Formats: sequence, structure tokens, C-alpha cells
Amino acid sequence: MRNDVTRVIDAEAVAAIVSKVGLDHLYDMAIDRLMAVMTDSVQGLVELRERDGFVLTTPHRGLVEWMPALRHGSTVAVKMVSYHPHNPAKYLQPTILSTLYGFDAASGHLRAIVDATFATAIRTGAASAIASRLLADPSSSVLGLVGCGAQAVTQLHALDRVFDFDRVLVSDVETEAENGFAARARGAGARVEVVSLRELEDRADLICTATSVAVGEGPVLADAAAGHVNAVGSDMPGKIELPISLLRKRVVCPDHRGQASREGECQQLVDGEIGPSVLDMIARPELAAGLRDRPTVYDSTGLAVQDLAMIELFEELASECGVGVDIAIESNSGDPRDPYAFLAGSQV
Amino acid sequence: MRNDVTRVIDAEAVAAIVSKVGLDHLYDMAIDRLMAVMTDSVQGLVELRERDGFVLTTPHRGLVEWMPALRHGSTVAVKMVSYHPHNPAKYLQPTILSTLYGFDAASGHLRAIVDATFATAIRTGAASAIASRLLADPSSSVLGLVGCGAQAVTQLHALDRVFDFDRVLVSDVETEAENGFAARARGAGARVEVVSLRELEDRADLICTATSVAVGEGPVLADAAAGHVNAVGSDMPGKIELPISLLRKRVVCPDHRGQASREGECQQLVDGEIGPSVLDMIARPELAAGLRDRPTVYDSTGLAVQDLAMIELFEELASECGVGVDIAIESNSGDPRDPYAFLAGSQV
Repeated sequence: MRNDVTRVIDAEAVAAIVSKVGLDHLYDMAIDRLMAVMTDSVQGLVELRERDGFVLTTPHRGLVEWMPALRHGSTVAVKMVSYHPHNPAKYLQPTILSTLYGFDAASGHLRAIVDATFATAIRTGAASAIASRLLADPSSSVLGLVGCGAQAVTQLHALDRVFDFDRVLVSDVETEAENGFAARARGAGARVEVVSLRELEDRADLICTATSVAVGEGPVLADAAAGHVNAVGSDMPGKIELPISLLRKRVVCPDHRGQASREGECQQLVDGEIGPSVLDMIARPELAAGLRDRPTVYDSTGLAVQDLAMIELFEELASECGVGVDIAIESNSGDPRDPYAFLAGSQV
Repeated sequence: MRNDVTRVIDAEAVAAIVSKVGLDHLYDMAIDRLMAVMTDSVQGLVELRERDGFVLTTPHRGLVEWMPALRHGSTVAVKMVSYHPHNPAKYLQPTILSTLYGFDAASGHLRAIVDATFATAIRTGAASAIASRLLADPSSSVLGLVGCGAQAVTQLHALDRVFDFDRVLVSDVETEAENGFAARARGAGARVEVVSLRELEDRADLICTATSVAVGEGPVLADAAAGHVNAVGSDMPGKIELPISLLRKRVVCPDHRGQASREGECQQLVDGEIGPSVLDMIARPELAAGLRDRPTVYDSTGLAVQDLAMIELFEELASECGVGVDIAIESNSGDPRDPYAFLAGSQV
């Protein structure tokens, strides 16, 4: 590995990787890598800092956050992720934009930058697939998706790798989003059925909520017959998708207790009301086994170690596929004691 | 400003900017911008998060840290900075490597990436110049530099913009570093004199310490006759450059109380022993005026808002000079609801 250049794995390189590897296989790899890195986390091989960030109020309401993780002896990964719900309408940009940065733990050198909007979407889907495999009825056959945006597509795709759904019920506050969903679901589109929210709550046996509901305007769900619910959209203080009445009837399992209590559905609960985290269940599988027959919620906020796993995966795949652009971003003069050595021929 | 590309201001672009603007003028601008952003901070126009990071122990001892700041309505800046004292010997890399990332507050779009090793070095010099202008005798004529690495060069250069030194005394534990310093100091080299640490302590009337002394091996200074000392090198838990006896005889002014208490010389002090911060003095100039005749220490740890000012400056200068490379790092498909739209022609 050269330590004088940074590999930029831009959107074009990510597209080339997907084209080579195939989406289905990429989801399978993401699920495997997330499972592995969460096991590494339990064993202390990786560590994370809780997500922190700025809540923006001007010119629009939004978030810019950082998610740092470390694989000891190898990589410091920092994911930057922003949430700007007005982006689609105002700037024709995705609500969630994200980039991942990988630094060599040995020298601090910036080894890679990866466009992470896509990587974040598939890892968020993969995380729900892992939680659902732990907590939901394996024979769940009707998936309900509340919110028909980009995250719903990746939730469906990831869960489809693990479950065998006959039907995919979808509902959104915007008719246009509902009607376009089947096309965005690609191969899964034939199973998609647009229904009312009430019908979705009644018929689905596994639900994912992934909405841009505004702070103070939730919850989006009234109740649910489903045995398991993945609550994916809550990611900022004050934003909730599930009603407290539903949470109180279920065992609520967050990915990260601290983050979920600050930004997720667990904002509505006190400590004693929160169930074991997914990391707890990976450390002690009997915890999950005991929950299989009880109604559950997975409160997903996203873990920095999951993003670490994704930059590791994309760095490997970019090398294998020979894609990405190498740029000498960091000055690396011959004389580390001379701050001006990189100026070379200029007039210093 | 296009919102579909990221401007990469790499080492080559930074060199082109310096060549066009001139180093002296760049230091003057850095001093002005830092003063302005610290005033903005006092007025609430910008805010920062305290530096946080990972302390690395394998394969070598080092640090990788992040420093986020926000200019409301405009820019989120995150500086990544690593400290790896073995880099010069092991990898021919600088001890400090750094990159700066600028995100559009309106959309979260990654607007710019700047090689920040140089920007960090000159802003650290500029910060000492500002603190010294507030606290040191304006007629100080003998500068003492303890540590002859890259940071010493930029301390000298920045202070030279504000003071009129006759003599620059330098001392390092490595003879090679001492002997090469005059050449690295460029135009200031003729005034450089290599002396023993003891002689420097006696003769200098303004001192900067900027060493890579290891955790547990400090302090590097025994005492100092100088009216003012800039303690620049302490930047990790356990690392100190000044003895507690010296600190107790002086008013110790940190750039940031929280950071300095965790990573700077203020680690050695309890709250009541710490003087006003530079931000306090900018908010209330009478605080600095009252300290002019007393022996002082500036405990420099580096402020994220200073780095915000530097990315703003380098983005402006890159535009003016027409340098940098625009790359479409982030996927920005036509359909924000479709996570696969950027894959375009591939087989999804």
C-alpha cells in the first residue's frame, strides 16, 4: 500500500464495483461483514465513539454528524453523514449524504475516501436484516414498509436476502413516492402492493419504518400486528416513528443504547424499559433466543463500527476491481522537519 | 458553487496558492482570519466541539483526532489531525498529518477537502502570534525555540510578522535538527543561533516550546527568564513541556479550557489555577491588558474554529488562484428516492 496517495472511491467507482459484484452478493457480503464486525466489537478488536454532530437550523433544519471507529492496529474510519430532509425538493439531492474516510492507524495517513451514501443505505438495510434474523419469526411472509424513499428500497433488498416474503406492503404520505416504489424495488417490484397505513399495520408480519417525519410530528405508526418492527428513521433528537404505547407492549432492542436514547425511539423510554442491544445479543445468543416469541422492536441508529466494516469492504473491492482514483492529497515532502519542503520550486 | 462536485485542494494546489500569495502575506491573512473567527466565536456566529480522538497503541503510539466546527448558515468544517512521532524515522512522513473537510450547511454536500498539514502549521503559528501580541512585551527581541522541527519554523515565521526579533535562539535534543534549522528558517536564518537549553532559558525574552517529548518524559524546560512562553507541543494526555513550578509562577492562559485541561499544560493545574482563555481576553480586552506586566504562558491546543477559518481562507484562495481538482465524489442521482439511480447502465 502506497502511503503517499489517497484512493478516492467515488460514486463512479462504487457503481463499477456494484456492476462487477452484483447487488445481491453485495448485500450478502454487507450482512456477513456487519455480523463479523459486531462480533469483533464484543471482543474488543474494534471500538467506536458515539455519533456526535451539529443540529443545523439555518438556512434549513438538518444534521451533519461524524461517526468514528477504530480497528486496533489497522484503520481509523470516520463516517460523515448529513440528514437534510429538504434536499430532494430544494436541491435534487438525497436526504442523506455521506462520505467515509479511512486513516492508516500506523501513520495517520488518509488511505481512502469512499462515497458512502450508497454504503450507508445498504449497511442500514443489512443491520435490519441481522436484527430481524435475531428477533423476527423466520417464516414472516408479509413485509410492510412505512415510507417509500431510498431507505425503504435498501431495507427491502437486505431483508429479502434473509426472509422469503410473498408480499411487500408499502405506504407513504406522498402518493408519488408510493406509486414509484415498485419500479425502484427492481426485481422485487412484482410483490409490491400500495396499501393504506391502517391496512399495512394489520396485515404485515414484519414492518420497517423509514420516514422523514419531522421533529414533533411523529409517530407515524398507530399500532402494529407484526411480531417485529425495525424502526429505522429516527435519527435526531425529537424525531420518533413509533408511539410510546406500541413501544411499551414490546421488547425494544437498540443497536446502541446511548445513541438510541438520544436520537432513536428509545428517547421515549427510561433505562429500565430498554431491552438488550444487538451487541448484547451477539455476545450472549441466549438473550435473542428468549425474545423470539415476544413482540419486538429493533431501534436502529447506525453504528460507527458498521461503517468501519463498509470502508474495509469497499477498499478491498476497489482494489480487486481496479477502480478508484489515486490522488496525492497530503503533502509528503522529503524532509518532515521542513513545513515548506513541499513548496519546492516556489519563492520561499 | 456547484453542488455536485468536491474541490480537492491537494498539496500541489496549496503550493500553488503559496507561490501566488507569498508566505508572508499568507501568515498575515491567517493571523487576521484567526482573530476574526475567535471574535465570531465570542459572538456566537461560530461554534466548536472539543477535539476528540483515538489514542493508538498499536502498531505505534499515536493519535488520530477530529475537530468539528460550524459557521451557522454556511459551513461545517471537520479537521482530521494525526500525531505520530515515529513518522519521520519510520515512514519519512511528517509527525502531524492533517486534512480539512468543508460541508455545505444547507445540504450537507462535501464542498472541499484541503491538505491541512501546512494550514495547521501556519494556523498554530498564527495562534501563538495572537496570544503573544495580547500577553508578551511588544519589545521582545530574543525569541527562543525549544524543539527544531516543522512547528518551530512556523512559530518563528508567524511571530516574526508581529515582533521585531534581533536573535532567534534554538535548542533541540537532536543535533541534526538544531544544525538544519537556520536553513529551514529561510529568510530568518541569519538571526538563528544554536545554544544550550540552559542558555536559551536565560537569554530569550519570548519562548515557544514545540517538541515531540514523549508521554511521561516531560517537562523539557526547567525554568525561563522570558516574560512569556507559548507552550505549543502538549497535545495528548500525559504529554507536558513545562514544569509545574514554572506554571505556578505565571498566569497560564489556554486557548480552550476543556482541551487544555485534558491535553495541554493545564493538565497539571486545577481549575482555580488556570487564567483567562484567549477567547475570554478577546471578549474582555481589559483581561489581557492587566496581564501585560506579569509572566504568562499561552497553553496552545488548537481550536476547531481556527481550522474553520483556514478552510474558508483556502477555499477562497483556491477559487481566486484557479487551483484544485473538482471530483464528483458523492453520488447525486436524478432521483433522490432511488438508491440505485447512480448505477445507471449497470445490471440492477
